[in-house]
Amino acid sequence: MTWIIHDPLTHFIAQIAAITVTTRLIGLLLERVGQPFVIAEMIGGILLGPSLLGWLAPDVSHALFAPDSLGALKLVGQLGLVFFMFLIGLQLELSHQPKNRWTSIVIAQSGMVAPFLCGCALAYWMYPHYAAATTPRLAFILFIGTAMSVTAFPVLARILRERDMLGSRLGMIVIACAAIDDLSAWCLLAFVVAVARSSSLASAALTTGCALAFIVLVVGVVRPLLARWGQRQSGDSLTQNAIAFVIVLVLVSSWTTELIGIHALFGGFLLGVIFPRANGLATALARRFEDVIVIVFLPLFFAYSGLRTQIGLLGGGSDWAICALIIFAASAGKLGGCSIAARLTGSSWRDAGAIGVLMNTRGLMELVVLNIGYDLGIISPVVFSMMVLMALVTTLAAVPLLRLVQPRSH
Amino acid sequence: MTWIIHDPLTHFIAQIAAITVTTRLIGLLLERVGQPFVIAEMIGGILLGPSLLGWLAPDVSHALFAPDSLGALKLVGQLGLVFFMFLIGLQLELSHQPKNRWTSIVIAQSGMVAPFLCGCALAYWMYPHYAAATTPRLAFILFIGTAMSVTAFPVLARILRERDMLGSRLGMIVIACAAIDDLSAWCLLAFVVAVARSSSLASAALTTGCALAFIVLVVGVVRPLLARWGQRQSGDSLTQNAIAFVIVLVLVSSWTTELIGIHALFGGFLLGVIFPRANGLATALARRFEDVIVIVFLPLFFAYSGLRTQIGLLGGGSDWAICALIIFAASAGKLGGCSIAARLTGSSWRDAGAIGVLMNTRGLMELVVLNIGYDLGIISPVVFSMMVLMALVTTLAAVPLLRLVQPRSH
Repeated sequence: MTWIIHDPLTHFIAQIAAITVTTRLIGLLLERVGQPFVIAEMIGGILLGPSLLGWLAPDVSHALFAPDSLGALKLVGQLGLVFFMFLIGLQLELSHQPKNRWTSIVIAQSGMVAPFLCGCALAYWMYPHYAAATTPRLAFILFIGTAMSVTAFPVLARILRERDMLGSRLGMIVIACAAIDDLSAWCLLAFVVAVARSSSLASAALTTGCALAFIVLVVGVVRPLLARWGQRQSGDSLTQNAIAFVIVLVLVSSWTTELIGIHALFGGFLLGVIFPRANGLATALARRFEDVIVIVFLPLFFAYSGLRTQIGLLGGGSDWAICALIIFAASAGKLGGCSIAARLTGSSWRDAGAIGVLMNTRGLMELVVLNIGYDLGIISPVVFSMMVLMALVTTLAAVPLLRLVQPRSH
Repeated sequence: MTWIIHDPLTHFIAQIAAITVTTRLIGLLLERVGQPFVIAEMIGGILLGPSLLGWLAPDVSHALFAPDSLGALKLVGQLGLVFFMFLIGLQLELSHQPKNRWTSIVIAQSGMVAPFLCGCALAYWMYPHYAAATTPRLAFILFIGTAMSVTAFPVLARILRERDMLGSRLGMIVIACAAIDDLSAWCLLAFVVAVARSSSLASAALTTGCALAFIVLVVGVVRPLLARWGQRQSGDSLTQNAIAFVIVLVLVSSWTTELIGIHALFGGFLLGVIFPRANGLATALARRFEDVIVIVFLPLFFAYSGLRTQIGLLGGGSDWAICALIIFAASAGKLGGCSIAARLTGSSWRDAGAIGVLMNTRGLMELVVLNIGYDLGIISPVVFSMMVLMALVTTLAAVPLLRLVQPRSH
């Protein structure tokens, strides 16, 4: 197999080609059974990693993804993620649907608090068994709690669009909830990362303070300036200089957040959220970025994440039991919390169930969160693999469960 | 300055941001004096390299572009180049303008042969003084000859478009000439690389044979299959799966050519040339790739090339005299050869002069060629820097000289 890695360039090209082909083929298969494409991105990397390819053909896997060849893959994947988060931020519409705003806020916050508490309780109990001795208890508990409360805004939006539910009352509530949850979860995660990365409480406070100052700067100063700049642009005739300007802003913003000690992706996301929507700018930018980012660069990030997922590490029944418990706690918190809150704010049980099911999708966002925890050493490879399975199961379950609770919606 | 390179990700982001900002700022300045943007891409990297930044602020330069941090930059830049060459291939229209076909072929071939011979003669004389002892004489001479005969198809197309000359007889002839020269130069270069990379004549013949077999395979088998596939696509509604398919084809093709022993960029270029033009496919693909590739990834390649250009290496008058001689030989061959051929095939002296001036632009293509020679160890850092200056001067000279010979065309 050494001939495929003749030099660094052929090696890099072979990696990208293998990842793109695997992801697309799985995506085509999944399309037939009505699952969203995002599952393919989640599974693709796992199959190329030690869980399947490394187990079936260790030589191929080792030659193609030799540890010392992953540096460029990781960097490019992270860069892709930064721009993907910028696109996610761009898609986030916090302003519309004033009618259901109150309902959405209540459901969204219940859907954050319930899984967070379930996660923390489970993590408290798991800590002595599954955390490394060097991992601080607080960081571990907070991280698992945060990771459980993630909702995948883009997956949810894609499912709703595929089932023609975006215009319905249900769809509008869920989209608003997911947007609020997304934003809350990233804020929470930024805080958890600050705590985990800091050696002392003082330095955690410093990181949090810097992050808050940066957010204030971006929202208070950059946003109005950008809005004025946006007035002079037109989405239909964006020059390459204008696009380059936006790209540099995203780079600087993500560089700053990475330097502050929260992750680079926050910078991309934040800039997307505050970016002016006037003159079709957001749509035009998304159209001119999306393909290359989504087709080539983002899959590299998730493949990198899949490469480090080792399902084989789950040995024996007790590990699998914990894994089932994690899936149960995550779903009970998110699906249960959201459904009950939706029922209490006036939805029918059927709609409340659908809201819960949709909010329970973790998708790629969960993988992003888990990779941060893994990189920081908060979660071990075993816990990482368990949580990846949880993300996979909750996302896979969405479409079948939705068909169950709302059989006639499509 | 170490704070900007807190971790590999911030380092990588800082490099990309620095390169993008420098290139765009220079581009804005050049726009005012009527120079095409491509000059900015050529100069940007040189200014960030040892020739300016490394000389003004060695600490900054060393921190930002530390040698061991350039691996990812180089890989990503090369990948960007592969896709850029695919786009260049897509833009190449060999079929139209049958009326001027004969004229174009004569001018184009004179514009290849004359500078090639001038380059070979000069290289024969330079060899004992400027080539490393380990460099084979034949490879050095052939390489300099080839490098002199390059024409920058994209720069030329951009200048013609900016001056509204694309539709004129002159414009049509020049575009056709440039396309033919481009294709011929790459074939020639592929052969020179095969010769230079091979330890023996037998292995050079093997590489050339493999390359020819690959071209036959792509043109004879892949092209008709792709044409059939293209019939079922529509440029307006290209799915992400279709785009992913094209990307994978480009990756596989470039991987193959790199493996064969000619450069990865040939694979990208070849696929672009044979890609179906039906149903607006080529335009649609270009539109959805171009921005990210041209704005972010391509400049990385040229910056990488600029980083290794050390104008400071040209010490003393004799080096500068050789440099001037290179510029003279390149221009005499290309500008002279094309002008005389154009005059002999019926153009006025004014038009013939304009054709010569336009064909004399070397642009980014020359840098691509030079980097290949540098990587293969055919040319030394001094010769590399001299040739970069030649590329810069011939490209910079195009617009002013064009104004001189055709004052009223704009």
